[in-house]
Amino acid sequence: MGKLVECVPNFSEGRRPEVIEAIVSEVKQVKGVKLLDVKPDASHNRTVVTFVGEPQSVKLAAFNACAKACELIDMEQQQGGHPRVGATDVIPFIPVKEISMEECIQLANELGSEIASKLDIPVYLYEEAARVPGRRRLPDVRKGEYEGLKEAISQPERHPDYGQPKMHPTAGATVVGARQFLVAYNINLGTNDLSIAKKIADSIREVKGGFKYVRAMGVMLEDRDVAQVSINMVNYTGTPLYRVFETVKSEAARYGVNVIGSELIGVTPMQALLDVAEFYLRLENFDRKQVFEENLVED
Amino acid sequence: MGKLVECVPNFSEGRRPEVIEAIVSEVKQVKGVKLLDVKPDASHNRTVVTFVGEPQSVKLAAFNACAKACELIDMEQQQGGHPRVGATDVIPFIPVKEISMEECIQLANELGSEIASKLDIPVYLYEEAARVPGRRRLPDVRKGEYEGLKEAISQPERHPDYGQPKMHPTAGATVVGARQFLVAYNINLGTNDLSIAKKIADSIREVKGGFKYVRAMGVMLEDRDVAQVSINMVNYTGTPLYRVFETVKSEAARYGVNVIGSELIGVTPMQALLDVAEFYLRLENFDRKQVFEENLVED
Repeated sequence: MGKLVECVPNFSEGRRPEVIEAIVSEVKQVKGVKLLDVKPDASHNRTVVTFVGEPQSVKLAAFNACAKACELIDMEQQQGGHPRVGATDVIPFIPVKEISMEECIQLANELGSEIASKLDIPVYLYEEAARVPGRRRLPDVRKGEYEGLKEAISQPERHPDYGQPKMHPTAGATVVGARQFLVAYNINLGTNDLSIAKKIADSIREVKGGFKYVRAMGVMLEDRDVAQVSINMVNYTGTPLYRVFETVKSEAARYGVNVIGSELIGVTPMQALLDVAEFYLRLENFDRKQVFEENLVED
Repeated sequence: MGKLVECVPNFSEGRRPEVIEAIVSEVKQVKGVKLLDVKPDASHNRTVVTFVGEPQSVKLAAFNACAKACELIDMEQQQGGHPRVGATDVIPFIPVKEISMEECIQLANELGSEIASKLDIPVYLYEEAARVPGRRRLPDVRKGEYEGLKEAISQPERHPDYGQPKMHPTAGATVVGARQFLVAYNINLGTNDLSIAKKIADSIREVKGGFKYVRAMGVMLEDRDVAQVSINMVNYTGTPLYRVFETVKSEAARYGVNVIGSELIGVTPMQALLDVAEFYLRLENFDRKQVFEENLVED
């Protein structure tokens, strides 16, 4: 299989099945791309599409889907419960296997340039691909949404990274970028005291002095009467799962509380779990090629 | 990909490249089978071939390779440093993914029956496929080797499981069976006292009252001046890696010794490492489908 990159574009249409199908069909038609998921949300009027494949094929699929959305979605008419600036609202590239973040940033630049020049849609680069610090976070890039950005885009500080400082008359603007795979990971405590879960969450979250790539909060699992530290690991390489788990265990012990379990929500790259095994077994010279199944791909 | 079974036949030829190539070529020609490794050993005059694929394809590849070995290897002439009873000496099936040991035993029976009826080679079933306890261990089945078995096969207690009690005039007999994937795993101690490694090895090996699926011994890594517990995990599902690791850690502590590292030799099924991550993170409701890469196969 070789290099693998994931792409998760968000389109501002979650109600008209024929429009969603037309967009998704562009992804399906590209060889070397595997469609993993399509999640339309009618109340948000938004659809999240997930696909994966080798870099250039994934970029082509993203471009073709964006062109189709540009053709079929009119932002002058579009309304919904989710912030958005364009027909194709945001396109992140995510490294999965044998590809660096730098290569994903390069891919975002190539796609951004093509969308601007061929479709006349202004493009903003965000997250790891951001060129200015104020554009790393999506909400900052999207400030004012489609309606507000129509005016604001002419201000120098809101000029796009690619294309003219002028919204596409129907498709608006598009935000393209690169980010790490997000791992949703929760740790359950042997207590129903929510305040303890909140204190532990504070001890691991970046904003409170915790780990750089951790977002966390304390929540209550009402049905189980269990307090939980709910975590988003935004970079499982930079801050690994085992380090967060061990820290939560140690912080919980300070309150005389045990960790009774943890759970992964959705999917996780194999590497994140191999890193856990490597850490706890204190493995020396471990190579991913030692995983039997890794020798079966690329047929 | 679905069901995956591995097959590791041993052929009694390690010197004539054209014979080895002819046998291996039979494996390569079967669709749905991936050849992973060919290891000829001239001094043993023996070649170990490793391939993997869906069950019926793997069985066909094993049969065709066995037929070719029957055609090209004459046990009346064959000599070498490794015990053997036939041209195709032994054929184990090993479950890799989504296949049970029972299905592998069934596969061994089907193949054994075909080899006996179509090639006139008597077949013995060993390991998990053994029908009588005395045939579980390969050395017991192979007692007397080719030369001795020519006589002994006529005795009722040495009658084959499939075929007539009479050696094939040139190909001898073949041993077919099913076994678990063998994981070679070593644990390094923070001491150069070999006697401690030996005592710890005794604490985990089956024969000394340890874990059922563990073979272990203490050895010295001379170049590093480190004592090592060298382990063969013959069933990583029955006795998981983490349990052995934790026991070694605990036994070592009794001598005031630390575990400084461990190493996997060769390849290991992904499941063995996922089990480690699942154990240490205390994962609840973990499903292998949550590994991102698992959603990419079967294209």
